[in-house]
Amino acid sequence: MAAALLACDWGTTNLRAWTLDEAGGVVAERDFDLGVSRLTPGEAGRRFQEEVQPALDAVGLPAILCGMVGSNLGWTSVPYVDCPAGLPELAGSLASVEAHAAWVRIVPGLRCEGLVGAPDVMRGEETQILGWVAQDPARARGRRVVCHPGTHAKWVLVEEGRIARFVTVMTGELFAVLSKHSVLKGEGGADDPAAFEAGLAAAGDGDALAARLFTARSRVVGGGAPAAGTPSYLSGLLIGAEVASAPRLLGLQGGEPVDLLGDARLCGFYRRALERRGLAVETFDGEAAARAGLFALYQQGGRS
Amino acid sequence: MAAALLACDWGTTNLRAWTLDEAGGVVAERDFDLGVSRLTPGEAGRRFQEEVQPALDAVGLPAILCGMVGSNLGWTSVPYVDCPAGLPELAGSLASVEAHAAWVRIVPGLRCEGLVGAPDVMRGEETQILGWVAQDPARARGRRVVCHPGTHAKWVLVEEGRIARFVTVMTGELFAVLSKHSVLKGEGGADDPAAFEAGLAAAGDGDALAARLFTARSRVVGGGAPAAGTPSYLSGLLIGAEVASAPRLLGLQGGEPVDLLGDARLCGFYRRALERRGLAVETFDGEAAARAGLFALYQQGGRS
Repeated sequence: MAAALLACDWGTTNLRAWTLDEAGGVVAERDFDLGVSRLTPGEAGRRFQEEVQPALDAVGLPAILCGMVGSNLGWTSVPYVDCPAGLPELAGSLASVEAHAAWVRIVPGLRCEGLVGAPDVMRGEETQILGWVAQDPARARGRRVVCHPGTHAKWVLVEEGRIARFVTVMTGELFAVLSKHSVLKGEGGADDPAAFEAGLAAAGDGDALAARLFTARSRVVGGGAPAAGTPSYLSGLLIGAEVASAPRLLGLQGGEPVDLLGDARLCGFYRRALERRGLAVETFDGEAAARAGLFALYQQGGRS
Repeated sequence: MAAALLACDWGTTNLRAWTLDEAGGVVAERDFDLGVSRLTPGEAGRRFQEEVQPALDAVGLPAILCGMVGSNLGWTSVPYVDCPAGLPELAGSLASVEAHAAWVRIVPGLRCEGLVGAPDVMRGEETQILGWVAQDPARARGRRVVCHPGTHAKWVLVEEGRIARFVTVMTGELFAVLSKHSVLKGEGGADDPAAFEAGLAAAGDGDALAARLFTARSRVVGGGAPAAGTPSYLSGLLIGAEVASAPRLLGLQGGEPVDLLGDARLCGFYRRALERRGLAVETFDGEAAARAGLFALYQQGGRS
């Protein structure tokens, strides 16, 4: 079928774009090195018109965009929608921008009451998570616990198909900055299963993280462990600490099954950490969910 | 009096040197931009002979060095001494190196059983802490809890004048890498008392640190807090989490008074965090303690 919609997940480091047909099927897809962290103020709209729309043969097609493109670093700052919120609330708050005279909308992020009185926020994951809900009506019934791993991992409580509450854990960013800039920078890749398991074991119940982190160093200089295992150990320690504490932060009793949504390799690490704690896990593809969410918002958001 | 000893605290980022007289009094002092992290392998001894000894008019004087100079990044790798250990154990394990035919010794670091089966280690702080003990005989009686803030903060249990156990918390390094390289990098300095207090309040009991850290971001983008306060908030959050969990990691009941040893400004932040938890605090100068420790080890280590 012919392309009917240009759908974009436009985040901090990358822009992923698809053209979709009238049934939501993929016509074409492409990645752009246009993460909003690399854009100068005011640049997003121009790059979208000059590069993204033409590259996907989508000039004039309606377009819908989610992610950090809706922040003050992106195209325009779209106010957050407060939780609880589902697709109808997002569809009713799309922001309108101009590009080649087409219908172009940006999905708002979500805000909820967070830890210690500070609100928590997300931009982009809400579209993936509610798209995942839209993929199967069974997911809109009762309560689901969704974990979306990443730079800023999101743990999300979905109740009756709406996002009730969430909490952000900086696991991915901690791994990145510690691996690159700290005394914990390692020589190897993050692919040493035994070191990853040791890291999981070192995570305890997720308390005293800044002390546990030093064991990634001391086990090498004081205990003779090979430095090549440090990235995997660090990954296990951070992910282990996250899965140990995040359910509690959501007010859960513990033991609830977890739905993992995102990058397959990263979800694999999380699956191991969750299963080690005795939790039932299912893994789902984040990209398919993002497309489903963008398509649903296009359908519900109208072309007014 | 005339200089009788060249004493150096030679760490990762800096070398601080003093010449001391036969009573341990300071004759001269100087800092060198020769932290071992900036040295190439094998360079430490040459730079010491060519720059440090001549600059302090100390060629031919006995010299004693503590800190990372005794690691594989420094002059020579000195094996750790296992806890419990006091000045006698350190004095009996000084490592000998060659420089202008003088008596030159490097103080070994300490190792103890750490968290999760990995040994914990220190190099340099042991000399400060045992020097602090040597400064006042009362400190060698009973049990003292010493906190040495820094890049890798050390919490140390001193029993009958010996270091019984310690735990390292990466608070300083986390602050540095997050302030410089993460989404939490701030625009202001770390001198906003209200933001620091808010960070202390956000630290909770030191659990779920990777989630609490994100509140430094979300309070700004979702809650309208000024971004200029982020460094102080981050500092309060990290220090608050450390002081909440470190005593427990040492096996303490909680409530024990804490002796702070180190940089005055940093100790001031820790004092505030500890007092907020109702703990009695005394603060002591780390440099004077380092000199006292080096001088005591020189006296006890003999010039064999």
